Amino acid sequence: MQIILLSGGSGTRLWPLSNDARSKQFLRVLPKEGSPETESMVQRVTRQINESGINADITVATSLAQKDSVTSQLGDRVNIVTEPSRRHTFPAICLACEYLAKVKGCNEDETVIVMPCDPFTGKGYYRAIELMAESIQNSECKLALMGVKPTYPSAKYGYILPEKPLNEEEGQLLKVVKFTEKPSVSEAERLISEGALWNAGVFAFKLGYLLSMSARYQQHDSYEEYVKNYESYPSTSFDYEVAEKEKSEGVVPFNGYWKDLGTWNTLTDELKITEYGNVTTDGTASNTHIFNELNIPILVLGTENLVIAASPDGIIVSEKSKSENVKHYASHLKSRPMYEERRWGTYKVIDHVEFPDKFSALTKQLTLNPGASISYQRHSCRDEVWTFIDGEGEIVLDGERKPVKRGDVINIPKGQMHALRAITSLTFIEVQHGSNLIEEDIERFPFEW
Amino acid sequence: MQIILLSGGSGTRLWPLSNDARSKQFLRVLPKEGSPETESMVQRVTRQINESGINADITVATSLAQKDSVTSQLGDRVNIVTEPSRRHTFPAICLACEYLAKVKGCNEDETVIVMPCDPFTGKGYYRAIELMAESIQNSECKLALMGVKPTYPSAKYGYILPEKPLNEEEGQLLKVVKFTEKPSVSEAERLISEGALWNAGVFAFKLGYLLSMSARYQQHDSYEEYVKNYESYPSTSFDYEVAEKEKSEGVVPFNGYWKDLGTWNTLTDELKITEYGNVTTDGTASNTHIFNELNIPILVLGTENLVIAASPDGIIVSEKSKSENVKHYASHLKSRPMYEERRWGTYKVIDHVEFPDKFSALTKQLTLNPGASISYQRHSCRDEVWTFIDGEGEIVLDGERKPVKRGDVINIPKGQMHALRAITSLTFIEVQHGSNLIEEDIERFPFEW
Repeated sequence: MQIILLSGGSGTRLWPLSNDARSKQFLRVLPKEGSPETESMVQRVTRQINESGINADITVATSLAQKDSVTSQLGDRVNIVTEPSRRHTFPAICLACEYLAKVKGCNEDETVIVMPCDPFTGKGYYRAIELMAESIQNSECKLALMGVKPTYPSAKYGYILPEKPLNEEEGQLLKVVKFTEKPSVSEAERLISEGALWNAGVFAFKLGYLLSMSARYQQHDSYEEYVKNYESYPSTSFDYEVAEKEKSEGVVPFNGYWKDLGTWNTLTDELKITEYGNVTTDGTASNTHIFNELNIPILVLGTENLVIAASPDGIIVSEKSKSENVKHYASHLKSRPMYEERRWGTYKVIDHVEFPDKFSALTKQLTLNPGASISYQRHSCRDEVWTFIDGEGEIVLDGERKPVKRGDVINIPKGQMHALRAITSLTFIEVQHGSNLIEEDIERFPFEW
Repeated sequence: MQIILLSGGSGTRLWPLSNDARSKQFLRVLPKEGSPETESMVQRVTRQINESGINADITVATSLAQKDSVTSQLGDRVNIVTEPSRRHTFPAICLACEYLAKVKGCNEDETVIVMPCDPFTGKGYYRAIELMAESIQNSECKLALMGVKPTYPSAKYGYILPEKPLNEEEGQLLKVVKFTEKPSVSEAERLISEGALWNAGVFAFKLGYLLSMSARYQQHDSYEEYVKNYESYPSTSFDYEVAEKEKSEGVVPFNGYWKDLGTWNTLTDELKITEYGNVTTDGTASNTHIFNELNIPILVLGTENLVIAASPDGIIVSEKSKSENVKHYASHLKSRPMYEERRWGTYKVIDHVEFPDKFSALTKQLTLNPGASISYQRHSCRDEVWTFIDGEGEIVLDGERKPVKRGDVINIPKGQMHALRAITSLTFIEVQHGSNLIEEDIERFPFEW
């Protein structure tokens, strides 16, 4: 069995702890049952899949911006399919299926489960997924969905109306009668009274089923060609393109705990820990969650029903019930990502100044993981000054190698080719300065260490 | 007439916008009548003195840590007396009086007014001060105090019980019957019913009066000797050492607006502007004051009765009525000053890392004002890397001068002598790294530019 985990989406609703590169599913704040540790949504869902006993390979479909976060948090436990541009769930699922077929050599009869990584659920959810997979192999059903028992008439979910069940036992596949995407609240009330379920965004099908959908838009021998021609797929959702049109389709109802942790309000409801990072409170703060990713202290005195979060991107202080509105502001506040987890380690922007003549300086603290390296590159518009403050590594400057260690200062003028490799964990301060400080000012070259 | 403005005290109650070097009286947040500009408490009180028509020279008595802030905010308009160590108001006032006598050559008969710089008041306050000064010259009274009409039985002020006035006119000198320092609330109620007044901490006397008090502890020919032997004075308050003991003493009642802006709660009451710095709100925040001295945005959604303040020292989010409790926490949260206004310009700490072996790196962004210079110095435990990102200046390295400008990188290893002078406003990023990064690791040498 193959599982495709969808990990895309941009991170405005949990600003400032999420941004384009680090969306909500990478925040390491969720409690881990029976452990004082915390984990992120992608870490939780992959752990739960393994613990559920489902015997499946996991492939994460993600964006270029988030690829390094997936690698950093999940390592070799998963395959990664990177969308060359941000489109919708249908193209992302097609690309992942072509990867399974062309790169992993999966059989067309193999069951594929597509699932999001952000709902907060328990074991029953994975039993429902197993039932969906069984239905695909043992019934006429070509596409199986998961239907969550609604708890209120929400206008933000899709509704699936199933055939009346013969008996009220959970865990049976029911035929789908109708789909309704994001109805009004009153329509949602009527749908719920008729027995409709929320569309959980979990799908099961045989690999060949989706490959034939993909073939309508492009057919190639190699996976790379599908990546290159990614724009050939329509930018539509899987629900719209596939689920709403399929006639031979069933839904497995799921009545257990299921929660979308998409907003500060719903996320903090699940967190037993209320303080993350350098936080001091006077003990009178009630229902207040505080997240501090800055290296300066946060002091909180006597507040109520607040979420407070600080990162190099910014600071939010919000009454919890208002926190959903962050999405209206975050995109305006966004400048450049101030903190990123990359395949080679992490960096944070510690200072950014722009002068009236547009010359600017960006100062970062970077840490390369032992053994990791930054590609051989040069910049045409900026100089970089690296002051090494911890660890040992090797630098290449215009082809010449030399060791670097704590205390060394390297001045890299524009145009100079440079690469860096960490032997031990290597930390340095980088001052970039120039007239056009954009991430795109970079030319990469092959280099063999 | 001579005015001694007391500007000492450490800044824990308005943390994180105040610290040892920048106490509450330097925050530029107060509204300036008839102007969109804001000013600090020291700027406000000196402006008000000038506008009141009082013809007096102003001498600010301050600590070493705050001297540069006074210079930066008041410039040449005031004399500055720097306490060599932090003691109490009696020694500070003695030293300032010795300065007036020995350095400024003031006559022993000249009137001296001592006043704090933190109460928020209006014109009537300065009229009361003029009356105090007149009483000193035209009556038998040796020490005149100001008594503020109490508005509630506070346990945090000193109470002065005057003789019953012959008539209820304001602005007359009354004989002092009794002093009570910080009574209980019930005792305060009784005192108020008897007609007691709050001690405003404003004093008037002839210079010779205080010089004779000072002479009990030390007598020298030069001011420098008083500075050198500052510890000879007892570390007690002026109230205790002088005011409570003086028999020939009067108090001028003042019944106008007078408010101690010492806490976030009382300070924000006076501020018409509710947002300072890079702040975004959703328009539903009520009675919320937000101060942002960081270069990242703060977003505030739907909060009530909060004060939010962020600086390189830290972040506070407090229910306004609880904000006074910051004093219990600020000293523990304090690390090193993260932002300072110095005589040569400003600096802020943008990053600080310490490794397990105690090696650490401190990164600062510094701006020297045009014409300002940093003294000729060397460090024995740290290297410094300076990357110039704006302006032009001149650097001296082991005696050799050379020009510096935007884009230049200067590596200053430990032991190397260096000085820097700005021609235009000069901004650079400094990375300090070494095993013992303390401000005291500095040896200064004379240098003629």
